[in-house]
Amino acid sequence: MKRIKFRWRDREREGILVNDTGEFLEIKLKNGYNIVLGREEVELIEEENIQTHRPEIVEENGEYSVIMTGGTIMSRVDYVTGAVYPSYDLSGIIQRPSKKIFLSEIKFSEAMEPKDWQEISQLCYRELKDGKRVIVLHGTDTMTYSASAVAFAIRDMNSPVVFVGAQRSSDRPSSDQNLNIRGAFAVADTDIGESVIVMHDTLSDRSVGIFRGVRTRKSHSSRRDAFRAIGQGKIGRILYPEEKVVINQNYRKISELGELKNRFSYDVGILYFYPGMGEDVLEYFAQRFKGIVLVGTGLGHVSPKLIPKIGEHRDKIFVITTQTIEGRVNLNVYRTGREILNAGVLGNLTDILPEVAYVKLSWMLGNNIPRESYSENIVGEITERSIYSSGA
Amino acid sequence: MKRIKFRWRDREREGILVNDTGEFLEIKLKNGYNIVLGREEVELIEEENIQTHRPEIVEENGEYSVIMTGGTIMSRVDYVTGAVYPSYDLSGIIQRPSKKIFLSEIKFSEAMEPKDWQEISQLCYRELKDGKRVIVLHGTDTMTYSASAVAFAIRDMNSPVVFVGAQRSSDRPSSDQNLNIRGAFAVADTDIGESVIVMHDTLSDRSVGIFRGVRTRKSHSSRRDAFRAIGQGKIGRILYPEEKVVINQNYRKISELGELKNRFSYDVGILYFYPGMGEDVLEYFAQRFKGIVLVGTGLGHVSPKLIPKIGEHRDKIFVITTQTIEGRVNLNVYRTGREILNAGVLGNLTDILPEVAYVKLSWMLGNNIPRESYSENIVGEITERSIYSSGA
Repeated sequence: MKRIKFRWRDREREGILVNDTGEFLEIKLKNGYNIVLGREEVELIEEENIQTHRPEIVEENGEYSVIMTGGTIMSRVDYVTGAVYPSYDLSGIIQRPSKKIFLSEIKFSEAMEPKDWQEISQLCYRELKDGKRVIVLHGTDTMTYSASAVAFAIRDMNSPVVFVGAQRSSDRPSSDQNLNIRGAFAVADTDIGESVIVMHDTLSDRSVGIFRGVRTRKSHSSRRDAFRAIGQGKIGRILYPEEKVVINQNYRKISELGELKNRFSYDVGILYFYPGMGEDVLEYFAQRFKGIVLVGTGLGHVSPKLIPKIGEHRDKIFVITTQTIEGRVNLNVYRTGREILNAGVLGNLTDILPEVAYVKLSWMLGNNIPRESYSENIVGEITERSIYSSGA
Repeated sequence: MKRIKFRWRDREREGILVNDTGEFLEIKLKNGYNIVLGREEVELIEEENIQTHRPEIVEENGEYSVIMTGGTIMSRVDYVTGAVYPSYDLSGIIQRPSKKIFLSEIKFSEAMEPKDWQEISQLCYRELKDGKRVIVLHGTDTMTYSASAVAFAIRDMNSPVVFVGAQRSSDRPSSDQNLNIRGAFAVADTDIGESVIVMHDTLSDRSVGIFRGVRTRKSHSSRRDAFRAIGQGKIGRILYPEEKVVINQNYRKISELGELKNRFSYDVGILYFYPGMGEDVLEYFAQRFKGIVLVGTGLGHVSPKLIPKIGEHRDKIFVITTQTIEGRVNLNVYRTGREILNAGVLGNLTDILPEVAYVKLSWMLGNNIPRESYSENIVGEITERSIYSSGA
């Protein structure tokens, strides 16, 4: 992307050049509006590259490992019964002439749980160690959980791990499967050393998004462009029909393969706060789990009457996230927040997503990571403080 | 808003006229792009009004009841200690020359729970019955819960009930308090017979949004434009500096005041599903509550191993919603969904928000509403089926 100064109708203006179709320029103005102008009406005065660039393409090996865990991407509809059933006929999906592809199969992703994260991470690690680029076919429902798990388990990667799924099965005309898969292979050839998700980012077939696993949510139950990067943009996109990978965000480049830390604890629960929640529910979670992810309101609040109960369980790890999904927890602003902080709750000033907090805590407990690490940014799961984060 | 046909650069095009500044036309094209064109370049061929209009202004009484429940809107910062404390000095906030204003005070909204919903509804009802327009000053964290509660408690209103809050306290230069309050009074004068929320909908001071209480979420922890209408647009906006109310959506017009049904049960819990959740956690919720709001993944899924446990508790009411926030539950698409349906879970094909489902179930149990009503649209909490709702 480029920051441009341009003259239009005798006035000098500034904006971000979002798209250049040849005929038109799409420009994001400072007031937030996107305008589309005919190219020849615009006199470009100045332009400056900001971030967008093509990643380095790493071609020295060219072997891929495709790990199959199920999901719509591996499904077909039986048009007699109307049921969706799994399909192992991947010839139409993943054939790449002149590329070597190795297949592994795990299980269906709807039933995924921490032990499966362990297994997927193990398999990814083995394949990365063997010099392969890794593509994981995964159901979209729990994809961000699994992609986050791999991100924590393998913090330094020598090749991308690319999660890819589909919202519509392959036998539907509107299927997103083919472009998503092609995009996943394209991303697998780059120097992005992260656990990423490749899924449609618009309703059009002109592009597919590259999302950071730990900063992404499935944000619609059925649309093709269900995935959304939260609190920061996508890492980049694959543009079609050129199948060109472009980058918008900083990303971690591939490096030496680091160590594998892939144990995940079942001793974590998510407790979604609601007005009227009784102390006994909180007590149950505190008794039942070593780590509790609270999903509070606004800046990270729960009802004041629950706070003493949290304070009684200092041996447990309570972390706080927010139901708003967007924005940062800030326990410094209101009295309730300060009391929550005093009760020993972790996560102040972070914007880690509730689901990612769950995976992180499960990973921390599984690998004996000290509790202080929770509020540290380990693999990009916490963004830098944004200008909008102040609450008062 | 208008649907327009227009000619530009010798080609006929269609779109929705989103904004007309005099100098520019902002047009949403069919492909989803918004373009901004100089007005004199565009030849309008055809235009057709769609929905947007000004609501009827109802002026026959002019008495307002302002119910104060706390929140940032009633707060000031102590710049010595940095703490935010409540302020009862509302003279600067709600003075309206030549308007009669009656004040009531309840409690601070951070600790709101079902018994408070009962009290707020009761008070709103009394004031509506007395011919007043009702404005509720409320903290933003739990505002959608309370606005939803009033919506269910008073289904037919003779005047709007307007919830209003602020994200920044009044002594900050960036405070949104003043415009939000002015907007609330403007909306109180209309014929909108619903429980609505009036909050900034952009970062600018040119407009404030009118949100349907049961279709809205606080979607950012700190931004002024934190509230977002989910699955349908806002009801409308108040445009500044004109302070003009414009309407974009169908809304329920004021009618005879209906009956009050304002009992809310505490016997409901929200259970947020996560991969690895044990059957024992589900069993605890089933034992503990009469109604359980499951927040599942994607189209409304939970791990298959939990489903038999749900089926064992047919005396309880399980309803399913989705973590994606946007989009509809659809249990007909995958086998897991069908099993969930067979286990007796309600809410198939609805897109009710998790928080609203909680309030609705609490209201149903409190007022002995039969369980079949859960999937019926009672006060606009379920939208009509959208074209994107099919999942397979």
